Amino acid sequence: MHHLVAPKAHDEGESTALAIAAGVIEVAAKNILTHRFPMKHVRRAQEVDGELASAWEEAARAIIQRLDAGEDVAFPTLGDPAIYSTGFYVYEALAACGWAGRVEVIPGVSSVGASAASANMPLCLGDERLVVLPATFEDEKIASLLQQVDVAVFMKVYRVLPRIVELLESLGMLENAVLVERTSCGNERIWHDVRAALSEDLHYFSTLLVRKNRP
Amino acid sequence: MHHLVAPKAHDEGESTALAIAAGVIEVAAKNILTHRFPMKHVRRAQEVDGELASAWEEAARAIIQRLDAGEDVAFPTLGDPAIYSTGFYVYEALAACGWAGRVEVIPGVSSVGASAASANMPLCLGDERLVVLPATFEDEKIASLLQQVDVAVFMKVYRVLPRIVELLESLGMLENAVLVERTSCGNERIWHDVRAALSEDLHYFSTLLVRKNRP
Repeated sequence: MHHLVAPKAHDEGESTALAIAAGVIEVAAKNILTHRFPMKHVRRAQEVDGELASAWEEAARAIIQRLDAGEDVAFPTLGDPAIYSTGFYVYEALAACGWAGRVEVIPGVSSVGASAASANMPLCLGDERLVVLPATFEDEKIASLLQQVDVAVFMKVYRVLPRIVELLESLGMLENAVLVERTSCGNERIWHDVRAALSEDLHYFSTLLVRKNRP
Repeated sequence: MHHLVAPKAHDEGESTALAIAAGVIEVAAKNILTHRFPMKHVRRAQEVDGELASAWEEAARAIIQRLDAGEDVAFPTLGDPAIYSTGFYVYEALAACGWAGRVEVIPGVSSVGASAASANMPLCLGDERLVVLPATFEDEKIASLLQQVDVAVFMKVYRVLPRIVELLESLGMLENAVLVERTSCGNERIWHDVRAALSEDLHYFSTLLVRKNRP
């Protein structure tokens, strides 16, 4: 028996990861287990929200039950599993719950690479340095990092865009920014003038690319 | 007519990108144009090596000739085209040679994501910051960046590994490093103790991952 654990954000919601997987694999032949992971911020230095930690552990226990029965379990993620994905939290929870067997991580196209492709903007050329960071960091930390890299990719920018636009403007870098919303989702939008996006209601899947030296 | 421009490093060599593409698309139906791009370092702040600049321009002119005839041209790359790939240099050369028509960049699985998957190591969790940089930078610049990020991915590490190992050891981070060679190439090697790789003859496709907080 092959199981597919489909993550979703709401009890009544659909699993976007499952919908994407259904476009490329025959999901009808799998046993689909949907599992809800609440959308909450995780800060690595702080204790994890209890509801979220429970969701990871419950998923891990449900998976281990099938693995112990000799069955296979797949856990689809959006983008690359190593980039801010629930997949690796479940991976950690599997170990914490005692699973010592094989786990294979299959890499994917990240939203970072997909946004760069949509914007026709390289992430690294030659000897350039790239940083990927959540836009929620303090201005000073962001400004300090921007001094040392050539390209920055801001994730989770949808709620803090006004602050980031102001910061980039003060650093003289706003003209070097491109905003990509819902990359690869079929209803993508791109702003080469990021100011124009300030009045928009942006989706959670919004990525801001800043390249100091435009090719 | 559909053309496929297959990049290769040596006149007498094979195109690795073509070999990979041949595994997923029907290349027999395409007209294959191989084009040699010399393996040379590119530093964005410095003038480009003449032989390399000529290679980009010749490729661009050959491509534009077909595009002007109303034909399609694809240019496969290894990994994601936005990550240190010849693809974006050719893209720039196309514009420099006057091509104003459509160019679509198709994102791929980067060696960064593929190496992280092989090493079962997340690149970013929660609010973590990731940097991708060439290992050839000076020690001070690397050390300064490492202070401000949670995960670092060193590219082009094969020739400078002894220096990087020494630097990471002095920073107390060597235990947090994993080296992945030839990820996804079928003959991948992984070192969780990077010291053991110092005596090895490493391939150009070698990526060093350093995670400050091991999950």
